[in-house]
Amino acid sequence: MEIILKKIILASKSIDRSEIFKRAGIPFEIFITNINEEKIKTKFSNAVELVQEIAKAKALSAKNNLLNKDYNAIIIAADTIVELNGEIIGKAQHEYEAFEMLRKMVARSHKLITGIAITEIKSPKIFIDSDTTIVEFLELSDEEIWRYIKSNEWKGRAGAYSIRDKATLFISKIIGSSSNVIGLPMHKLYEILKTEFGINLI
Amino acid sequence: MEIILKKIILASKSIDRSEIFKRAGIPFEIFITNINEEKIKTKFSNAVELVQEIAKAKALSAKNNLLNKDYNAIIIAADTIVELNGEIIGKAQHEYEAFEMLRKMVARSHKLITGIAITEIKSPKIFIDSDTTIVEFLELSDEEIWRYIKSNEWKGRAGAYSIRDKATLFISKIIGSSSNVIGLPMHKLYEILKTEFGINLI
Repeated sequence: MEIILKKIILASKSIDRSEIFKRAGIPFEIFITNINEEKIKTKFSNAVELVQEIAKAKALSAKNNLLNKDYNAIIIAADTIVELNGEIIGKAQHEYEAFEMLRKMVARSHKLITGIAITEIKSPKIFIDSDTTIVEFLELSDEEIWRYIKSNEWKGRAGAYSIRDKATLFISKIIGSSSNVIGLPMHKLYEILKTEFGINLI
Repeated sequence: MEIILKKIILASKSIDRSEIFKRAGIPFEIFITNINEEKIKTKFSNAVELVQEIAKAKALSAKNNLLNKDYNAIIIAADTIVELNGEIIGKAQHEYEAFEMLRKMVARSHKLITGIAITEIKSPKIFIDSDTTIVEFLELSDEEIWRYIKSNEWKGRAGAYSIRDKATLFISKIIGSSSNVIGLPMHKLYEILKTEFGINLI
């Protein structure tokens, strides 16, 4: 099996996902889709099904837009949420919502779930999977949560934290993939691309 | 408790440790020590004791050099090793050693152990601790290991890999702190600095 010959398109506007790809040395291009996530959210209450459906919608939207171009391209899409005691937590819209989110999440563990969808332009095949990592937070005072929020890391991130930045100070343990917590379960991408698309990322 | 008032000195030449501190928003200065690690290695066969002793030696060496300067400074030192089936694995010296290391590590799990030592210039107190994270690798072919080695990530890193870079593709699971795998268990630093030195990093 040879090194990457196809173009990889990351259908995501997440800076975190771009950074994982860059640091892993994967050449890629970004294509930003504009799907109606709210509509999907009303249809799926199960966390794993939800992120898989959103990832699938993003991948198919990118594919529709890129048909007749980039015939040899592979499209990778993803969506990440947090599940805490059965409750689905997405991104906070403002500081107060981020505060309420984190206040519920401290001194316990939550699930970080990422759905991924991989397809190629030239065929109808699409692979959908998900990965779950358990993340445990230390206890924090309200004052500490507010100071953390002022770092602005909460913005645009499921569960209002970033495992690679200041939040590393209060993440006591994870069980599962660490890249999954950043937004892409890289070991699963590696395996699916190798097995199903003949692309070896290493 | 107030935000950092003391100067933090990181007694480490590791680029990874500096990057964790920067990304966590911690102001710090670097002081590089030059201790005789080999001498310590001959005295301790237990992995946890060994990294703690090396971290302690680095912290005390920095302290001796900085006495009479920076009276209010806190010194943080660390040392990281890998333990695989009871065998202690440090840094590879050349590509072939890195290859042999990784070949033993694939398709199984190892322990990533970091020892930390925290002291301050103005008092004799020193806190020593360690943290262990279990890291699981996927199976890789010899060809894949060689391609990985050509990324040069193995250089200067215990166990010859970097969890934030290309190795993210073959790390299937971790159990424990993810910052510990990079070289500093940040949640432990946060707790020790808060409890023992009155410094809140958040």
